Amino acid sequence: MVSNQIEAPVRKLMGPGPLEIHPRVYQALTTPIIGYLDPAYLKILDQVGDQLRKVFQTRNRATNAAPGTGTSGMEACVANLIEPGDKILVCVHGYFGDRLRQMVERQEAEITLITEEWGRPIDPQKVEAAMKANSFKVITLVHAETSTGVLQPMDDIIKLADKYGVMIILDTVTSLGGVEVKMDEWGLAAAYSCSQKCIGCPPGLSPVSFSDRAVESVKNRKHPVRSWYLDISLLEKYWGSERVYHHTSSSTLNYALLEALRMIEEEGLQNRFDRHLENHRALVAGVEALGLEMLVSPEYRLPTLNTIRIPEGIDDMELRRYLLETFNLEIGGGLGALKGNVWRVGLMGHSSSAANVLFFLSAISRALALQGHKTDLAAGTDAAMSVLNA
Amino acid sequence: MVSNQIEAPVRKLMGPGPLEIHPRVYQALTTPIIGYLDPAYLKILDQVGDQLRKVFQTRNRATNAAPGTGTSGMEACVANLIEPGDKILVCVHGYFGDRLRQMVERQEAEITLITEEWGRPIDPQKVEAAMKANSFKVITLVHAETSTGVLQPMDDIIKLADKYGVMIILDTVTSLGGVEVKMDEWGLAAAYSCSQKCIGCPPGLSPVSFSDRAVESVKNRKHPVRSWYLDISLLEKYWGSERVYHHTSSSTLNYALLEALRMIEEEGLQNRFDRHLENHRALVAGVEALGLEMLVSPEYRLPTLNTIRIPEGIDDMELRRYLLETFNLEIGGGLGALKGNVWRVGLMGHSSSAANVLFFLSAISRALALQGHKTDLAAGTDAAMSVLNA
Repeated sequence: MVSNQIEAPVRKLMGPGPLEIHPRVYQALTTPIIGYLDPAYLKILDQVGDQLRKVFQTRNRATNAAPGTGTSGMEACVANLIEPGDKILVCVHGYFGDRLRQMVERQEAEITLITEEWGRPIDPQKVEAAMKANSFKVITLVHAETSTGVLQPMDDIIKLADKYGVMIILDTVTSLGGVEVKMDEWGLAAAYSCSQKCIGCPPGLSPVSFSDRAVESVKNRKHPVRSWYLDISLLEKYWGSERVYHHTSSSTLNYALLEALRMIEEEGLQNRFDRHLENHRALVAGVEALGLEMLVSPEYRLPTLNTIRIPEGIDDMELRRYLLETFNLEIGGGLGALKGNVWRVGLMGHSSSAANVLFFLSAISRALALQGHKTDLAAGTDAAMSVLNA
Repeated sequence: MVSNQIEAPVRKLMGPGPLEIHPRVYQALTTPIIGYLDPAYLKILDQVGDQLRKVFQTRNRATNAAPGTGTSGMEACVANLIEPGDKILVCVHGYFGDRLRQMVERQEAEITLITEEWGRPIDPQKVEAAMKANSFKVITLVHAETSTGVLQPMDDIIKLADKYGVMIILDTVTSLGGVEVKMDEWGLAAAYSCSQKCIGCPPGLSPVSFSDRAVESVKNRKHPVRSWYLDISLLEKYWGSERVYHHTSSSTLNYALLEALRMIEEEGLQNRFDRHLENHRALVAGVEALGLEMLVSPEYRLPTLNTIRIPEGIDDMELRRYLLETFNLEIGGGLGALKGNVWRVGLMGHSSSAANVLFFLSAISRALALQGHKTDLAAGTDAAMSVLNA
């Protein structure tokens, strides 16, 4: 007799994702599966596309969820828009910018690299200097660096891209649905995200959007797209009016995505951004009142993912194990260059709540105390409460 | 106020997939999401790997579910094992063999093509002639052609591949879990499948297995794998002992996959194959007693997917619309060269049942009668019943 219990503890998810999802989204997962060309399913795919256009703030026809995790969307953008020998401006100020660089490299493009210290945004002056010196087809950029908690200011870079006619591929994995993303107003060529962060759905899908100009440029490639699975021309034939079979779309995940997107519509985008910002501010106020330090300076902080410097003398692994085992609380550790230096605390989607902010402050305060690092929890909670107007 | 109802009708799924899944698998979907590096989740991934080794009948370390639909597994096998200039023997006897050909082409390999009429298996003599004349790195082959309903006999081809030292990439999308697949005994280099057919899980994951030799050959490539997302070396570092972050694994889908795999273990592989075979034989007996003709000759028929010739004068689209609208019954139409010529009736996983066989016979008999094509339903049902010993 084999057990039919999946042994998964109920966690409080406050890392970089996945995050907790709303019961309505769990419920949507059990909607009966139907075929990928069922007329009822094609309607659902259309609704997913329509709802995603709202969160991307775009009219792009080629907008839907790529059949894989966020990284599949990243690869879809890179593999479609970049071909061997293309001149690409790659901006790296964190782990995911570097992942983009690795993908662009695998397309055998000619890379010009701009780097920035992890925890700082990309400097538009460096972008301008590069664009003046060279003619690029594409610039790759991370809007919300999940590894550092930096929100990249877009104004200068979109002006430069427009001026020099460079297509922007933007990583919105940790911003879409939690922070403003203006696909059309910013003139983005392609953007991708994931289902499990600010959108509030389980992982497994990757919202993507390609501008008409980007789709056109794919049609004019000299070499075929190296990925058949993620070829946007083939995906678009399935998503669009032709309805040509491409892959067996996961109805299960798309039901959940649609439900999560409907909940965004009900809340309203601006309200949702405000909620993410308020809970972020409360967390920062609390964390700083505990005497901890944020990695990122105030003007570049991402409201959805908070990076906190680990105080000297604290054993990161032991602390996070304690949180997990004692409170069932997951927070993220540092990635790459920041490994062992920061904690990453996600407040995204359904997880962006006052309850989570206050719970985190209590738990981290206790965990630090156990390692001999005293903090003033009452001060931390008061500071958070005053932001929350509670 | 936005509705929170996903408008998906409850269908009887008897097409090429997705198929119906067991209530236990639906239930597993709602197991709370946890993080991709949570110790509890890593155990679940290990269990998925262990269970998949059982259905693939392999000891291959690099065995788990690729983060996408079946086509992502196809691309994982092709993109990892094939690089520009490699000599590849590509066998096409249906739509999915041709999809493999397109993928191999995108790797800029040197292709030698063997084709066969759709509805017939690949002729081993052609394989032998090709292998005698040329030295190939890889042969790509479809074990169970979902477009034609042909089960490829493997004996001769595995002997030839062994004799000439050619690595086999095998598509087991419509066989794994329903028909014998012997990864190690057959000496396969890489094989892939999907979650939603004979395995009995929702779509969205792609079981894959790479032999140690195959993994080694990836390490010795001259060019990096063109797909970062599906690079088996990176996937293996996450699935294996190093536990390096690669993508945000969909806990939701992996819970369901694990539950479906546990149900296979409970039933027993051989019992499961027997069940698939018996229901297939009942369907064929019934269909033939109705006066309809199977596309494939008896010795090559796939027990999991049945292709039935559409009688002359029947309007395919109208008939399938009638089945869907009147009985909520989905069966598949023909793909590519067989479009309009065959129906594809899936009996896979939880959907391979006597009830579905009998329901299909009743529904198709009625649908044909409405288009003036009379059949003897009593004879069809009797024939099916006698196979079912009922």
